[in-house]
Amino acid sequence: MKANVLFSPVNTDELYFTGKTAVVIDVLRASTTITSALLNGAKDVVPVATVEFAVKISGGMFGGQTLLGGERNTKKIEGFALGNSPLEYTKEIVEGKSIVFYSTNGSKAIVKAKFAGSMFICSFLNIKAVAKHLINIDDSVEILCAGKNGLFSLEDSVCAGRLVNEINKLNKDVMLSDSSRGAIALHKSFGKDIPSLLKETEHGKLLIKNGFEEDIEVCGNVDSANIIPYYTNNVLKAMS
Amino acid sequence: MKANVLFSPVNTDELYFTGKTAVVIDVLRASTTITSALLNGAKDVVPVATVEFAVKISGGMFGGQTLLGGERNTKKIEGFALGNSPLEYTKEIVEGKSIVFYSTNGSKAIVKAKFAGSMFICSFLNIKAVAKHLINIDDSVEILCAGKNGLFSLEDSVCAGRLVNEINKLNKDVMLSDSSRGAIALHKSFGKDIPSLLKETEHGKLLIKNGFEEDIEVCGNVDSANIIPYYTNNVLKAMS
Repeated sequence: MKANVLFSPVNTDELYFTGKTAVVIDVLRASTTITSALLNGAKDVVPVATVEFAVKISGGMFGGQTLLGGERNTKKIEGFALGNSPLEYTKEIVEGKSIVFYSTNGSKAIVKAKFAGSMFICSFLNIKAVAKHLINIDDSVEILCAGKNGLFSLEDSVCAGRLVNEINKLNKDVMLSDSSRGAIALHKSFGKDIPSLLKETEHGKLLIKNGFEEDIEVCGNVDSANIIPYYTNNVLKAMS
Repeated sequence: MKANVLFSPVNTDELYFTGKTAVVIDVLRASTTITSALLNGAKDVVPVATVEFAVKISGGMFGGQTLLGGERNTKKIEGFALGNSPLEYTKEIVEGKSIVFYSTNGSKAIVKAKFAGSMFICSFLNIKAVAKHLINIDDSVEILCAGKNGLFSLEDSVCAGRLVNEINKLNKDVMLSDSSRGAIALHKSFGKDIPSLLKETEHGKLLIKNGFEEDIEVCGNVDSANIIPYYTNNVLKAMS
């Protein structure tokens, strides 16, 4: 079993993931929001790579029980029912619904990994659950950080490092690439106080500036969830 | 003054560098080889992004005093006078010559940053010299790691982190991005014994397998050179 980390989706092309086991991480906030939506009973989340496609499929498909959710540059998109704050995805609003979901980095990263044999969504909320499941399926894993606009994101990389570290604790024989060794070092350097880390990253500061400080608390709630969003037939569903 | 690190050339496009101050790092081995060639009296090094272009310009231009150098996947290219081992670029061979230089990652990274206002080449050999010069010119800096085939390379990232750390020691007011904070952490985690680090990275292991263990010693010779290769009129020259 090997563990490799990709610090940005631009590091590879779609075909790189063909048949592999992939984990997609977008701590602030797509991974956390998707996990919260499924925790609160959403039927599924449909990740899309463009706003246009979100609008196109939201009408007639999925039995009309859809909600449009997501953001562009942290803000809710005109005409969308929901933004990208995990706090919006309450039981009252999402239960039983399909959420068509677009975000600047996260949903695009998920769509990029669509040819993976298995794909799981990870945030600080469910790292232990994801690590345990990866050890059970015992396949090499590509951990894809959504990053931001093609660039490195510290919170995604620290989350990836914590995941590799958990896997490595459970299976000492995991082979580590340069990037997974680097990610573990980032986890060890920055991972002691996740809420504080999140507030100090570039994206965290932008969220605070735009009024989303409460979201950061939610996104830093380490190992609070026991579900794993997984990709099947173009949608994300909860595995618990 | 800001310091930002790009862990791979694919993170941005060419125009990103327009007018900026850029530093390109390819520890194993292009940065080291270019520095060695200029230390040993090469007139200049002409970085090219394709083997075809290297062959095309090597004949009639530059007064006929050219040598073709470089590698593809660590190995010398057929018809080239020199590979990408810094040990080949001796005074006897390179003095007074223009070296047309292609390598799998390094020369392509340099060509990608060609629109930079100023561009410098950094390896472990000349980190202190580069840091001091950057402080003198007092401009924000983009540190571009050549990486490997679009992916993360630990040795380039640790070198970038050491450079940011040196800059930060000289000027405490440098603004650090997520990636430069991450790179400093990598330097602190892996940078204590550079020759050992280089032997343990993916690219280092490949070089050892292909018979280039001696090169690794040269590439790990920290702060042994006092020159800075800089880019001017499409060639690299020595600033000392």
